[in-house]
Amino acid sequence: MDRLAKQLHFILELDKLKSIYRRTYLLDETRSENSAEHSWHLALMAIVLAEHANEPLDVGKVIKMVLIHDIVEIDAGDTYIYDSQGDKAERERRAADRIFGLLPADQGQEFRALWDEFEGATTPEARFASALDRFIPQLHNFYTQGRSWKEHGITSERVLMRNVEMSRGSVTLWEWTRTLIEKAEAEGFFTKS
Amino acid sequence: MDRLAKQLHFILELDKLKSIYRRTYLLDETRSENSAEHSWHLALMAIVLAEHANEPLDVGKVIKMVLIHDIVEIDAGDTYIYDSQGDKAERERRAADRIFGLLPADQGQEFRALWDEFEGATTPEARFASALDRFIPQLHNFYTQGRSWKEHGITSERVLMRNVEMSRGSVTLWEWTRTLIEKAEAEGFFTKS
Repeated sequence: MDRLAKQLHFILELDKLKSIYRRTYLLDETRSENSAEHSWHLALMAIVLAEHANEPLDVGKVIKMVLIHDIVEIDAGDTYIYDSQGDKAERERRAADRIFGLLPADQGQEFRALWDEFEGATTPEARFASALDRFIPQLHNFYTQGRSWKEHGITSERVLMRNVEMSRGSVTLWEWTRTLIEKAEAEGFFTKS
Repeated sequence: MDRLAKQLHFILELDKLKSIYRRTYLLDETRSENSAEHSWHLALMAIVLAEHANEPLDVGKVIKMVLIHDIVEIDAGDTYIYDSQGDKAERERRAADRIFGLLPADQGQEFRALWDEFEGATTPEARFASALDRFIPQLHNFYTQGRSWKEHGITSERVLMRNVEMSRGSVTLWEWTRTLIEKAEAEGFFTKS
């Protein structure tokens, strides 16, 4: 029962990710999005969009990766992609040590390995998971008339430069993004550079 | 590109599940929980707790099932387990028709089959997914001193009666629940019957 108690401690701890808010808004703009529901959204995207990955991959692994990729934010907070990343890597590593350390050792190691793989972005699964994570904010921003881009003074050049890595996971989603950014530019959804 | 456009339409539609609120509270009691973040929580529970299922099962399938199990609430709303279920089944079927129908036909059918399987509860995966769905509110209620139970006048007898089905998916989680309910009773977390 000690094993189950540890597992439940971890599961209760996860509840805190529901209170970590991101810069993106829900499509209905009633509030900003939290990292738990964002992770759920990515997991469903992994299932639906897997066929658009550049390389053949294990979808089940991508799903697990996106489900756990933001858990470290419980301690480290959400770092906005357009802000200075500062000591983000170190803060997130410490968070991973503590939070995955709540699990029984074998499971903690499995989760940590998945998270390290996501961060490393050197496998097809990690590259695609990261592409999804970079893709969804473009949709949220576009369909809220660039609200978060405007609030933070983000130009279309910065969006393209900061997200071009998406193409390493999915050229298809990257091409879609480029078209979307062009339309957004034409619609005036960006701060002018 | 028509295929990708359909997939993205579905993905944008999913955003609405983040605004469907349940009766359970977050553990910090700042607000009630929505069905998207709840589904994320269940998916992680599926990974961590799979070893406590009664039968051997395909964990990947359980994960997919819990990720999609509440999507129908976008149209049908969340029906509280202790309320009259009314025409819930019919409302949710119509919702499944519409929402999964947004996807390309092959994927729509895959999602619908998974949801039907979850609802039917006749496979080890569906029974375990349903057990997780019944288990997590007990934790949320217990660790918020029975807040939602008290607000809705729920007795410990009703909790036990309404959730005994959990044992079909996991006797271990059901035994944990029974102990928790006993403690909750002793602590005065329930409305007296």
